[in-house]
Amino acid sequence: MAEKKQAVTMDKIVNLCKNRGFVFPGSEIYGGFANTWDFGPVGVELKNNVKRAWWKKFVQETTDTFGVDAAILMNPRVWEASGHVASFGDPKMDCKNCKQRFRADTLIEAHSKGEVAAEAMTDAEMESYIEEHDVKCPHCGVRNWTPIRKFNPMFVTSRGTLEEGSDKVYLRPETCQGEYVNFLNVQRTARAKVPFAIAQIGKSFRNEITPGNFLFRTVEFEQMELQKFCREDEAMSIYEEFKKKALEFVESLGLKSENLRFHDHDKLAHYAKAACDIQYNFPMGWQELNGVHHRGVWDLSRHQEYSGKTMLYIDPFTNEKFVPNVIEYSIGADRLMLALLCAAYDEEILDAEKNDVRTVLHFHPAIAPYKACVLPLQKNLSEKADEVYRKLAKKFAVTYDVTGSIGKRYRRQDEIGTPYCITVDFDTLNDDTVTVRDRDTMQQIRLKIAELCSYIEKSLEF
Amino acid sequence: MAEKKQAVTMDKIVNLCKNRGFVFPGSEIYGGFANTWDFGPVGVELKNNVKRAWWKKFVQETTDTFGVDAAILMNPRVWEASGHVASFGDPKMDCKNCKQRFRADTLIEAHSKGEVAAEAMTDAEMESYIEEHDVKCPHCGVRNWTPIRKFNPMFVTSRGTLEEGSDKVYLRPETCQGEYVNFLNVQRTARAKVPFAIAQIGKSFRNEITPGNFLFRTVEFEQMELQKFCREDEAMSIYEEFKKKALEFVESLGLKSENLRFHDHDKLAHYAKAACDIQYNFPMGWQELNGVHHRGVWDLSRHQEYSGKTMLYIDPFTNEKFVPNVIEYSIGADRLMLALLCAAYDEEILDAEKNDVRTVLHFHPAIAPYKACVLPLQKNLSEKADEVYRKLAKKFAVTYDVTGSIGKRYRRQDEIGTPYCITVDFDTLNDDTVTVRDRDTMQQIRLKIAELCSYIEKSLEF
Repeated sequence: MAEKKQAVTMDKIVNLCKNRGFVFPGSEIYGGFANTWDFGPVGVELKNNVKRAWWKKFVQETTDTFGVDAAILMNPRVWEASGHVASFGDPKMDCKNCKQRFRADTLIEAHSKGEVAAEAMTDAEMESYIEEHDVKCPHCGVRNWTPIRKFNPMFVTSRGTLEEGSDKVYLRPETCQGEYVNFLNVQRTARAKVPFAIAQIGKSFRNEITPGNFLFRTVEFEQMELQKFCREDEAMSIYEEFKKKALEFVESLGLKSENLRFHDHDKLAHYAKAACDIQYNFPMGWQELNGVHHRGVWDLSRHQEYSGKTMLYIDPFTNEKFVPNVIEYSIGADRLMLALLCAAYDEEILDAEKNDVRTVLHFHPAIAPYKACVLPLQKNLSEKADEVYRKLAKKFAVTYDVTGSIGKRYRRQDEIGTPYCITVDFDTLNDDTVTVRDRDTMQQIRLKIAELCSYIEKSLEF
Repeated sequence: MAEKKQAVTMDKIVNLCKNRGFVFPGSEIYGGFANTWDFGPVGVELKNNVKRAWWKKFVQETTDTFGVDAAILMNPRVWEASGHVASFGDPKMDCKNCKQRFRADTLIEAHSKGEVAAEAMTDAEMESYIEEHDVKCPHCGVRNWTPIRKFNPMFVTSRGTLEEGSDKVYLRPETCQGEYVNFLNVQRTARAKVPFAIAQIGKSFRNEITPGNFLFRTVEFEQMELQKFCREDEAMSIYEEFKKKALEFVESLGLKSENLRFHDHDKLAHYAKAACDIQYNFPMGWQELNGVHHRGVWDLSRHQEYSGKTMLYIDPFTNEKFVPNVIEYSIGADRLMLALLCAAYDEEILDAEKNDVRTVLHFHPAIAPYKACVLPLQKNLSEKADEVYRKLAKKFAVTYDVTGSIGKRYRRQDEIGTPYCITVDFDTLNDDTVTVRDRDTMQQIRLKIAELCSYIEKSLEF
């Protein structure tokens, strides 16, 4: 059997992503831009599969969760109500020596390898920690910091259709406000009864001072999250339920339990009643993968106050009126994609003497970019291979490869995580059977073409 | 048989969308914002289905088209190369009487009911047209216009991490630049040979002066488009091929051919060699639904010039080096969704005396928000109905309704376009059969539960 060679590093993941078409640096020909990333041909399939998998588990397969897709540009009053205009700020420090700017909390988290949760510290506590633990500038190695100042990471733009610069517009820094402002719209049209949830997948933007670690922290990112509206007395049990569901979900996609842990927040935002992250053991250490938060009545109450519109839910049986509590469950699509790439990555030594190492991504078939690759053994079999391709492509994303030896083609598909390679050979012309090679076991079986779809479909269940 | 009652109007579509959870005004509790719209529970399913259908036809089922998902925020140099910084501008006019601002081209197009293609007119030609045809202000009814001035509709923001206001960043006004800048990244990693295409679905932003007509023109919108890279001598035949494919696609989703027409551009952008829209007969008249453009070597050449990086494709057989021509095919997801809503909408008089009118959306099952609704005949059948729901929900989006008479529940599903209503009754407990009622024919058949998935799946093919 193949043995594991060595630990995955971020460099290996970044290089594989770039060389195999998962992820390219954004605007690369212009030297990139602000740690943005463009998803390539297999990356966009992987990311879409991750988003679909989440939607399937948390929206499609439930009866009490309803989706929305709210606009990125919202009325600026939304961000006054949410508190983002007044008090949303990253604690920034400048290195007086090299003039680079950093976030104090990320400096502490990096220095403590994720052991210290700096997001709940006050500015003074962070400054003390940095002094006591001699946290130096990662860029120049000197410790000579300015005091912490707040930097509002909302991107600001302007409609500007009537007068110059009169109307500030923000790029949303989080998607969840789209659910809060539509709480009664969804409740009414879906005739939903508390407890119910509104879910959304969409982009958010944060003008991060120090984005980094590849897809981990980016100025533009995609969130998958839901807000469950409930009575106060059921909120804590729903909170616990989502901690469990959140963990089950990432495990079902292939993250190993030994690389996952709960991390309760030591200190809470003033409105929060409980908060817990799930951390993943990334190559750069334990870092937040997703969060579950008990937000109380804060969000709906604030919107009620700022909009002057009611946010009261009326119980259809008791006629009781109340503002529901909110349990939030949120996970970053890009961040999860990064975790799944790290978890799937493997280098197997097939023959140590010949230095034959197989790089393979062991994705769950449900998230693999392509479910299968169709390979004609020789070029003159491509008509039959086309026929097989077209049949499969009606059902799922598949690819086609005609170049090089079959062995080379297998390895290419291993590197992008394609679960099955389907070879069309001369026997295929006679008996309509093909060879199906399994990515993980490298075993081959012979199957009827007519059985291919159901064989692959079965592997996609999760 | 039911007869058609009357023509669909935009008001009817907007009201249905709002009342049934397709589309809500963005930030509605704050009085809305700039003609933004939030997709509700059924709207997000419809929109996702439209996007998946497009991706299936133009990416998944082909062997020569590769997807990308590029960042919305790109290096500002991209927009210098594309010409958007210097010369991208809407021709705006202010009404001196009521101070409202309008686009001259949309005034002319509205006045001529889409017969005049103003986008190719010069400013002087538009000013003359407006005077000759006495085009008045739609707001106050007076004709007292300022001369045309250019208004750059790119939203501008700033990274601002180092110095105040130093670095302008734009929200992309079109997605296609994400394909151009990644042309060689995709070509290399997909080992693609010309002709091949790069496809993308994503949001763009234009600071439109006069957004309007519901989802038709919005400041934030989603494009589905592809750029086909080819040799000069094959460009025109690929252009013609995409005109045909673009038409077939929208017809296959349910737009009727009598409501579709080609509209060749009279005048072309300076770099374009041919351009054609497909127009749809919306309730407000014939309007652009999608475009096919022959862009020559303009885009890649400009990026080669501005980035200093080569955009040369090297033919693997002849070693010939050249910058490929580009054929662009682009369609708005929101706009197509609006067209599909208009096409699907129907009011059928079932009983004129009783004023019994059935409102129904005749969506193709592939794009219907829910494929089926599971209805327990009575509440004490909900355990069995749950079982049926869970079985179907593993495969597709379905819904569940337990409230009101079966007839009322059928009508509710008709209004959101659910193709099948599945009633669980007391016989179901004995023989595992259910009643399946068809949305369009209103006929009912009895089916085994075990046959439901394949019955529904068959209807989803397109």
